[in-house]
Amino acid sequence: MDAIPIVGGTGALGWGLALRLGRAGHPVVIGSRDAGRAEEAAAKVREKAEGADVQGAGNADAATRGPIVFLTVPFRAQSENLTNLKEALTPGQILVDATVPLAAAVSGKATRLLGVPQGSAAEQAQEMVPEGVTVVSALHSVSAPTLSDPDASLDEDVPICGQKKDDKARVAAIIGSIPGLRPVNAGALETARLVEGLTPLLISVNIRNKTHAGIKFTGLPEELWR
Amino acid sequence: MDAIPIVGGTGALGWGLALRLGRAGHPVVIGSRDAGRAEEAAAKVREKAEGADVQGAGNADAATRGPIVFLTVPFRAQSENLTNLKEALTPGQILVDATVPLAAAVSGKATRLLGVPQGSAAEQAQEMVPEGVTVVSALHSVSAPTLSDPDASLDEDVPICGQKKDDKARVAAIIGSIPGLRPVNAGALETARLVEGLTPLLISVNIRNKTHAGIKFTGLPEELWR
Repeated sequence: MDAIPIVGGTGALGWGLALRLGRAGHPVVIGSRDAGRAEEAAAKVREKAEGADVQGAGNADAATRGPIVFLTVPFRAQSENLTNLKEALTPGQILVDATVPLAAAVSGKATRLLGVPQGSAAEQAQEMVPEGVTVVSALHSVSAPTLSDPDASLDEDVPICGQKKDDKARVAAIIGSIPGLRPVNAGALETARLVEGLTPLLISVNIRNKTHAGIKFTGLPEELWR
Repeated sequence: MDAIPIVGGTGALGWGLALRLGRAGHPVVIGSRDAGRAEEAAAKVREKAEGADVQGAGNADAATRGPIVFLTVPFRAQSENLTNLKEALTPGQILVDATVPLAAAVSGKATRLLGVPQGSAAEQAQEMVPEGVTVVSALHSVSAPTLSDPDASLDEDVPICGQKKDDKARVAAIIGSIPGLRPVNAGALETARLVEGLTPLLISVNIRNKTHAGIKFTGLPEELWR
């Protein structure tokens, strides 16, 4: 129980996260529906990050390998993935949900957000995980192409939402270990609906300005997470 | 028709905008339901910004004084104000809507966004203005206390949403004339719903981090609005 599992880690965001966490010295387990594809993705990380301890496994297997599990799947697949993790996740674990309910999930535009009955993808996740597992929401404003580009440097903020400050601080410690990412306490889990809206907003900004934008908050104190 | 009208300019955001635009050399007309209160607010600007050409007027009168009208009222008052402006606004004018549908409008929390039937306060405004008046959405992420503090310096971005790039560029030229504000083309008017969500998100970040945060986009090209 001491690695960082990334369920859906073969996608661009998850793979980029594995790359960055591997480089930062964390043992990582990339999860995929197909354990073979997970191992291929892990091998690709090891190639780009010498000495990184990154393995591959089936999603459910991966999810048992550490206390803080990242979920980096498209919204279309979030519900199915969480159903498949019901037997794997155990009380005390934190699930870090990076899902964005883009209208692209139903063949709509990536600049539009779907309404989620629970309020946000993160709150849908909280409804679906086993009792005792808590959901923290993060990583929505980090560009997947940038994160997964081994040569790209980062310099942006990562808003973190969740019910307990301690849970958020544990997730922040992991994300903050990646050079160029500054985790920011953005509020309760319900605030995830506003943060999930950053993704289609950034996609809209990207289209108009031909870039992969991230966000930064101005006016924050030097020392966060006190 | 050559001043910048600010309807609801006696509130903190509108007054701060009048102060900053006055300092930047623009003639400004602060509008209020009560012309006397508008003139008082204008006098207060002139006191803080020597030589500034800032006048006060009733809202409907103010709205006739320039081609680009700023609307800086609480969501609770947006609909009433637009009804009162129906006779004053004329085709070809741009209405810059800075309204945020915070749940505070119905005595809820300022960290929560209300659902607006049209999708956003900006789209509600577009539905209510006379034919030929176009709505551009802006200024949601600028902290009113910071903007209205004569001694505070600014350093942040202002996402601008609207249907026509030319309209957005005209509004951007005004906002960009304020030192420390960088206008960013954030997309079509419907994107305003995501930008309006920045306000409750920033309020949530402010509560956790005891500040008045703004936002900046990372990775933007040097030259915007080409």
